[in-house]
Amino acid sequence: MSGPDYGRAFGMWRQAAGADWTAYVDHAFVRQLAGGSLPRASFLHYLRQDYVFLLHFTRCWALVAAKSDRMPEIRAALAIAHGLIHEEMPLHETICAREGIPVTMLASTPESAANMAYTRYVQASGYGGDVLELLAALAPCVLGYGQIGLTHAGSGGPYGEWTATYGGEAYQGLCHQVGALIDEALDARLGPDWPDLPRAATLSQRFADATRLEAAFWQMGLDLA
Amino acid sequence: MSGPDYGRAFGMWRQAAGADWTAYVDHAFVRQLAGGSLPRASFLHYLRQDYVFLLHFTRCWALVAAKSDRMPEIRAALAIAHGLIHEEMPLHETICAREGIPVTMLASTPESAANMAYTRYVQASGYGGDVLELLAALAPCVLGYGQIGLTHAGSGGPYGEWTATYGGEAYQGLCHQVGALIDEALDARLGPDWPDLPRAATLSQRFADATRLEAAFWQMGLDLA
Amino acid sequence: MSGPDYGRAFGMWRQAAGADWTAYVDHAFVRQLAGGSLPRASFLHYLRQDYVFLLHFTRCWALVAAKSDRMPEIRAALAIAHGLIHEEMPLHETICAREGIPVTMLASTPESAANMAYTRYVQASGYGGDVLELLAALAPCVLGYGQIGLTHAGSGGPYGEWTATYGGEAYQGLCHQVGALIDEALDARLGPDWPDLPRAATLSQRFADATRLEAAFWQMGLDLA
Amino acid sequence: MSGPDYGRAFGMWRQAAGADWTAYVDHAFVRQLAGGSLPRASFLHYLRQDYVFLLHFTRCWALVAAKSDRMPEIRAALAIAHGLIHEEMPLHETICAREGIPVTMLASTPESAANMAYTRYVQASGYGGDVLELLAALAPCVLGYGQIGLTHAGSGGPYGEWTATYGGEAYQGLCHQVGALIDEALDARLGPDWPDLPRAATLSQRFADATRLEAAFWQMGLDLA
Repeated sequence: MSGPDYGRAFGMWRQAAGADWTAYVDHAFVRQLAGGSLPRASFLHYLRQDYVFLLHFTRCWALVAAKSDRMPEIRAALAIAHGLIHEEMPLHETICAREGIPVTMLASTPESAANMAYTRYVQASGYGGDVLELLAALAPCVLGYGQIGLTHAGSGGPYGEWTATYGGEAYQGLCHQVGALIDEALDARLGPDWPDLPRAATLSQRFADATRLEAAFWQMGLDLA
Repeated sequence: MSGPDYGRAFGMWRQAAGADWTAYVDHAFVRQLAGGSLPRASFLHYLRQDYVFLLHFTRCWALVAAKSDRMPEIRAALAIAHGLIHEEMPLHETICAREGIPVTMLASTPESAANMAYTRYVQASGYGGDVLELLAALAPCVLGYGQIGLTHAGSGGPYGEWTATYGGEAYQGLCHQVGALIDEALDARLGPDWPDLPRAATLSQRFADATRLEAAFWQMGLDLA
Repeated sequence: MSGPDYGRAFGMWRQAAGADWTAYVDHAFVRQLAGGSLPRASFLHYLRQDYVFLLHFTRCWALVAAKSDRMPEIRAALAIAHGLIHEEMPLHETICAREGIPVTMLASTPESAANMAYTRYVQASGYGGDVLELLAALAPCVLGYGQIGLTHAGSGGPYGEWTATYGGEAYQGLCHQVGALIDEALDARLGPDWPDLPRAATLSQRFADATRLEAAFWQMGLDLA
Repeated sequence: MSGPDYGRAFGMWRQAAGADWTAYVDHAFVRQLAGGSLPRASFLHYLRQDYVFLLHFTRCWALVAAKSDRMPEIRAALAIAHGLIHEEMPLHETICAREGIPVTMLASTPESAANMAYTRYVQASGYGGDVLELLAALAPCVLGYGQIGLTHAGSGGPYGEWTATYGGEAYQGLCHQVGALIDEALDARLGPDWPDLPRAATLSQRFADATRLEAAFWQMGLDLA
């Protein structure tokens, strides 16, 4: 299975997730978004749910900082949480405002079942396990968007701003940084041979479960529009 | 909205969940189960998922004991967790064994998305909030089964053992006990006027979200058989 | 360093804790308790604090059940929590009642700083890390009492009931069971070579920190009487 | 009991902590620090422990962001965590470097028992309870330093830089901000009459316990120098 090189763990986990990974990054929602045929209502429905998602996602990265005992991880996780709240959420606000959806309406979006499923899975993995399980559950979102963005960068069309953002240099840089953070987090705790440990199966499971829940999130964008 | 009297909080939360509550306790899966028309494959699929569910549900009750600082709650939560592992799970093992599904196969059931969604929501509510949020998210499962059991007790048919269990004296007694536990937990922390506090909306939301996820669990029983 | 054989991890962690381990299991409080010279007031002060301790300790074992994803661990942890609440706490109630300290007075004992320090360290280790860190922090209490009981079993005197309890067959059996539980928990997650992994240092640190806090608990018994 | 006005909850909790509060903010360590008679070794010992403390304290504020479901709290908590890691920790690094203690040595400071006791109490309160209990346990540190700084601002002497920092405008502004954050967090969840609820006693207890553990932290500065 090919895809961008965001590090060792990502490559392994993506490989193990197999068809589930493809079903996520090559979902009909994504293809329609990149090709421009996605109905506007689907896109806006997705954007609104994603706004609620980002709030919970920010809390998940704050939890990485809370659960880590390594300074560089704490710093990086706080910087990511900061970026989510001060850059990614305002970006959604801007796009939605342009479409006539004010911030107050955005913030009061009722959370869909598919939306809840993903962020609560990440939170439960994080609180129930350790920081590695949390990172494994967070990875499909961060890095999957990177792979999707890279695949469709420059596709233009009505949603060209979206693909340009995730395929752009800044977001791709973040993906490389997060991939390296995950590899270092694993090495620092489990050593370089971590893929041979029984724990590797649990981490791979967190990634695969979260991948399936991400695909369901795209599906929601198509279904509920 | 009518239904069994398992206490004050249950009555209020059920009322607030409105149509979502009805969609859960009167779901097509439930009606077919009680009426006997549910395909055997659907029932077995449900039972296997429910076995995996019970393991995570036991962990949720253990979390109640971990997060509570009141002795009677700790005692009750441990007793419930104990009952789940030593009575309810073995009951599933017995029924499944009769149908040719051995315990090893039961225990290795791949967890469905709908299954994960509910237990992880409960765990995330519990770890992220306090013991009250945890109890509010646990209530729809425990008490909804009680209401369903009571409604269909004595319906007999191929699944009569199931309805007899949840409509029976022992399970109904548990529901009254859990309902009282929840009311006492609320009063002891927030006082008798807790429904007037802003927090009441959060608790009601936990109950309503969990109710919707329970309905999705039934739907999975119908869809994936 | 010699001591009872409650398993591999215990042997390693005890060895690594070195003089801190000895300072705990051979603390002046323990020697005076076994030798019978401990002032009654010190013993009662300790018993009352220990009663509050046991409540929090029960919650810690419930947390093991909540955080574990392995059925035998969940079962064992719930059984231990059950034993603490239904056997060990009532034992304290009986001894204290004999000394004129009623249960209501026991339950309202203000928690000392040394008491808080240990249980909150265990809880923070457990919530912040995974179930292995929780077990490593719990071990010094469970297994240290085993070693102390074994060393002083049959010492008789005014506190002979105490030493007989912890040196007795039932408690020693529990120590062997907990030691095996810890070894299996480690092997099942990190494999048999876990002592070579970087994580081993963190686990050893949790054990050593908790050992120092246990010694401080004995010291409190001497200081505040 | 007088003291700076950092809000309603702080005023009440400080009042309820009574002599324990005074024992903390007017501890011999503080008086010697302000008066200039504190041995240099005591101050450096304190600074090194405080550096380790700040790492765990940052994680506690990240936990506030993880556990909160209110955007302004999440933003504020992340900003505070950011400030701790990018301003307060580097300040300690600078002062210590001047005294010949390099960062590597600072970061490897073995955590003292008194140091562990406070941060682990805060973490256990936060994970075990909800965000309000976490804030109540964090308050004595943030706001106590504010009160101490204000009392001794301009005292000059060898440690004048320390008192000037905490008595200065920037830190005093932070205290007012945190005090307001706490008041709003309480009102938004429990309503304006929260002091009348049973829960108020638990919150007050978290503040009082944490206050005693802070006093023990000062004592460690005197004892171990």
